[in-house]
Amino acid sequence: MRHPSLKTGQKLVVIVGGGFAGLNAAKALAGQPQVHVVLVDQRNHHLFQPLLYQVATAGLNPSEIAVPIRAQFSEYENIEVHLDRVLSVDLKRKTVQSDIAELDYDYLVLACGAQHSYFAHPEWEPFAPGLKTLEQATEIRRRILLAFEQAENETDLEKQKHLLNFVVVGGGPTGVELAGAIAEISRTVLVSDFKNVRPESARVILVEAGPRVLASFAEDLSARALKDLESIGVEVMLSSRVEHIDATGVQVGNKLIHSQSVFWAAGVQATKMKISPEVAHDRAGRVNVGKDFSIPGYEDSFVIGDMAAFELPQGGTMPGLAPAAIQAGKHTAANILSSIAGQPREDFVYFDKGQMATIGKNKAVAESGSLKMTGILAWFAWLFVHIFYLIGFKNRVSVMGQWAWSYLFSKRGSRLITERDWKLKP
Amino acid sequence: MRHPSLKTGQKLVVIVGGGFAGLNAAKALAGQPQVHVVLVDQRNHHLFQPLLYQVATAGLNPSEIAVPIRAQFSEYENIEVHLDRVLSVDLKRKTVQSDIAELDYDYLVLACGAQHSYFAHPEWEPFAPGLKTLEQATEIRRRILLAFEQAENETDLEKQKHLLNFVVVGGGPTGVELAGAIAEISRTVLVSDFKNVRPESARVILVEAGPRVLASFAEDLSARALKDLESIGVEVMLSSRVEHIDATGVQVGNKLIHSQSVFWAAGVQATKMKISPEVAHDRAGRVNVGKDFSIPGYEDSFVIGDMAAFELPQGGTMPGLAPAAIQAGKHTAANILSSIAGQPREDFVYFDKGQMATIGKNKAVAESGSLKMTGILAWFAWLFVHIFYLIGFKNRVSVMGQWAWSYLFSKRGSRLITERDWKLKP
Repeated sequence: MRHPSLKTGQKLVVIVGGGFAGLNAAKALAGQPQVHVVLVDQRNHHLFQPLLYQVATAGLNPSEIAVPIRAQFSEYENIEVHLDRVLSVDLKRKTVQSDIAELDYDYLVLACGAQHSYFAHPEWEPFAPGLKTLEQATEIRRRILLAFEQAENETDLEKQKHLLNFVVVGGGPTGVELAGAIAEISRTVLVSDFKNVRPESARVILVEAGPRVLASFAEDLSARALKDLESIGVEVMLSSRVEHIDATGVQVGNKLIHSQSVFWAAGVQATKMKISPEVAHDRAGRVNVGKDFSIPGYEDSFVIGDMAAFELPQGGTMPGLAPAAIQAGKHTAANILSSIAGQPREDFVYFDKGQMATIGKNKAVAESGSLKMTGILAWFAWLFVHIFYLIGFKNRVSVMGQWAWSYLFSKRGSRLITERDWKLKP
Repeated sequence: MRHPSLKTGQKLVVIVGGGFAGLNAAKALAGQPQVHVVLVDQRNHHLFQPLLYQVATAGLNPSEIAVPIRAQFSEYENIEVHLDRVLSVDLKRKTVQSDIAELDYDYLVLACGAQHSYFAHPEWEPFAPGLKTLEQATEIRRRILLAFEQAENETDLEKQKHLLNFVVVGGGPTGVELAGAIAEISRTVLVSDFKNVRPESARVILVEAGPRVLASFAEDLSARALKDLESIGVEVMLSSRVEHIDATGVQVGNKLIHSQSVFWAAGVQATKMKISPEVAHDRAGRVNVGKDFSIPGYEDSFVIGDMAAFELPQGGTMPGLAPAAIQAGKHTAANILSSIAGQPREDFVYFDKGQMATIGKNKAVAESGSLKMTGILAWFAWLFVHIFYLIGFKNRVSVMGQWAWSYLFSKRGSRLITERDWKLKP
C-alpha cells in the first residue's frame, strides 16, 4: 500500500529499529522535505544499552537510560514513529509487512540489532538470562537481590553458600562490567543490611572461554582488567568452557558451580528477519552488505548496525559498538538523500573511536588509536563519554546525580525486587 | 520454634507487613534492648502508596517512591527483616507460620494493609486493574501509553476513538488523582508527539456511585474538586453504578463505554490472613480491635493500619490514611514496651491531621480541622507534605527534581512501556 501521508514527489523511507543505528538515520532525515520516514520499533523506547548493566545492578533506573522514541521527533512532521513489528521484507516488490500494515517503500533501512546466542543451547536461557532489554535487566536485578534475601533466610549453611554464588558467562565488556558491579554491590552497598549472611562472602565468578578477558582490547589492557577484577574479588576462570547450565548451576569443564544466579554475556547473533529472496549472511547471522551498506543487488535496501556484516579494508568486520552504529546510520541517511538528488553515493569509511570498559569504582580500561588509559583516569573518561552520549538533558543530570551519590555514599538508588511472574492478583 | 537470635530476657516481637503501620512500629522498637524484632514482608520494599498514581502516569520512577525495608534498619542489631510470607497465625499458641519457618512470638503486630475489592466481581480485575503495588502501577502506565500508541496506528476512526476512552472507577482521592493525571498528560505531555491522533481528544471519565467525589471531604471541597476536574477535561459521572466490565469496556447504568483502559479505585478490603481461632471483623474484612489495637481476648496480639477496624469515640472507624497508620504503629510499639516494663498500656487517641487530594497542576483540595484550602495554595501544601513524608533524603531530592522539571516543561520522565507478559525470549 502506498503510504497515505506521502506528498507528491516525496520518497518513503522505512527504518526498522530505533537503536543507535536506526535512530541516527532517522535524525539525519528529519526535516528533509524530499523524504517521509516511517520508523518502526517493537518498543516505545530507545535504549542506551552500554549502561544496561547498571540497571541490572540497581545503580540506575530503567527510565534513566531509555527515552521514548517518538519524543525525539515531536517537531518533525516528516517522521512517523510506529510501535509495530515488521514480519517480513520483500526486496523485489519493495514492501514490508508488519503486524498492522503492508507498506511500499522507496528506501529501506534495516537496523534490528543483535540478540544473545546460546551456541545451540537455547534451553540454557531461562537459567542464564542475557542483558539486552530493560526487562532482562530488571530480571537480573531481581535475581541478584533475591539471592541475598533467600540466603538471609536460609539456615542450611551449604545451601546458603550456593545462593551467594554468582556466575557471569563471557569476558567481553558486558561480562566484565556486570561481574565487577555485582562484586562491588556485595562488598559495599549490601554489607550492612544483612544480619545472617555476610554479603561480602559472595563469590562472583567470571567464566571466559578464551585465554583473556576483553579480547578485543590490547593485551596489556586485558591483563590490567584481570588484575582490577581480582582486586575487587571477582574470580576469573580463563580458557574455561561452559558445558551445561540448569537450575542447579553451571558445569565449567568438569567442575560444577552451584548457582541460581547465572548471567549470560557470551555470544550474540544478529536479529533474524524474514527477507525474500534470501540474502547472504555470516556465521553470526549478520547480513553481508556492500560498501554503502546496501544489500548486493538491491541498492535501495540497506542493513546497518549490529545486524550488518560490513567488511573493513584492513580485514575483519566493523565491531558492534554504539559509535559504529551511529556513523552507519548518519552515512546511510546521507546516501539516501544523494540518491534522491541524482548524485553518486559515497562509500562508508569507519572512524574507529576506540573502546572502553569499566571494572568498578575508579577502575576502567580505555584505548583509542595508540592512546591507552587505565585506572582512575580511564574511569573518569568512561563516565564523561557515557554521560555525553546519553540522550536527553534530564537523563544526563539524573545519571550524574545517581553516580555522584553512589560514589560518595556507596549506596544504590534502585534496589527494588519487582515480580517477574506478576499476575493481576496482588 | 524459639528464635535463635533471642537473648536471655529479650522478648520476640513479630511484625507482619512493612507499610506505614508496620514500618513505624519497627522503627519505634529499633535499638530497644528488651526486644528482638522480626519484620516480615512479601516485598523487599516499603512503598509510599500516596504517590503510586504518579508512577502509573509516568511522572515518577518506581524506585523514587519505594525504599528497601532492610536498608531502614541497617544500624539496628535488634531488627531482622525477612522477605517471607506469613501463612497463618495461632493466637492461643502464639505462633506464626510462614513460608520458611514457624516462630513463637511474645508480641505480634499484624499490619498487612488492604487490597482492592471488586464487590463480588473478581472477574472484572483483569480488565480494570487497581493501584496498590508497583507492578500494578507500571501495568496501568503500560496500558495508558499503549492505548495512545495503538490509536496512532489505528485507521478505523471508530476504533481509534474507543482506544482513547479512559475510565476510572471510584471518586475517592486515588480515583480523582489518577483521572486528573491522565487528563493532564493527554492534554500537555503527549500533545506534540503523535501525528495521527490528537491526544487531547482523549476522553477521561470518572465514574462514582455516590452523589459526589471525595465523599470523605467537606461538601464545598467536593464541589471544588468536581469543578477542577471538569476544567481539565475529566467527565465526571456521579450517582452512577458500574454494572459490568469486560474487554469491550464498562457498562455504567444502561450505557456502554467502549474502553480497554479501565482502572479500579473503588472499594478496598483488608488483606485476608488465616487467624485461628477466628476473630471478629467488619464488612470490609477489618479485624475489630480494642482501644490499644489488641485483638479482644489476646492482649499480646495487635492489628494496626488498614487491616484494623478501630472505633473512634465520636463514631465511625479510623480512616485508612498514612498518618493514622503511622500513629497506630508508634503507639503500639510504646504499649509493647510498657507491658514488658510491667506498666499499664495507654488507650490510643487518634489525632486527625486532615486530608488532601490533588487534581492537577496548581489544583488541589485540603482540609485539616476547620481549615480548608483549595487551588494553588492547597497544591503547594500537598507538594510539601508529600515530599516531607517521603522516606530518604535522596528520594526527596529526586522527586523534587522530577516535579520541578514536569512543572516547568510539561514533560514526564518515565514514559516507558515495559512488557507485562515478558518471557525470557527477547
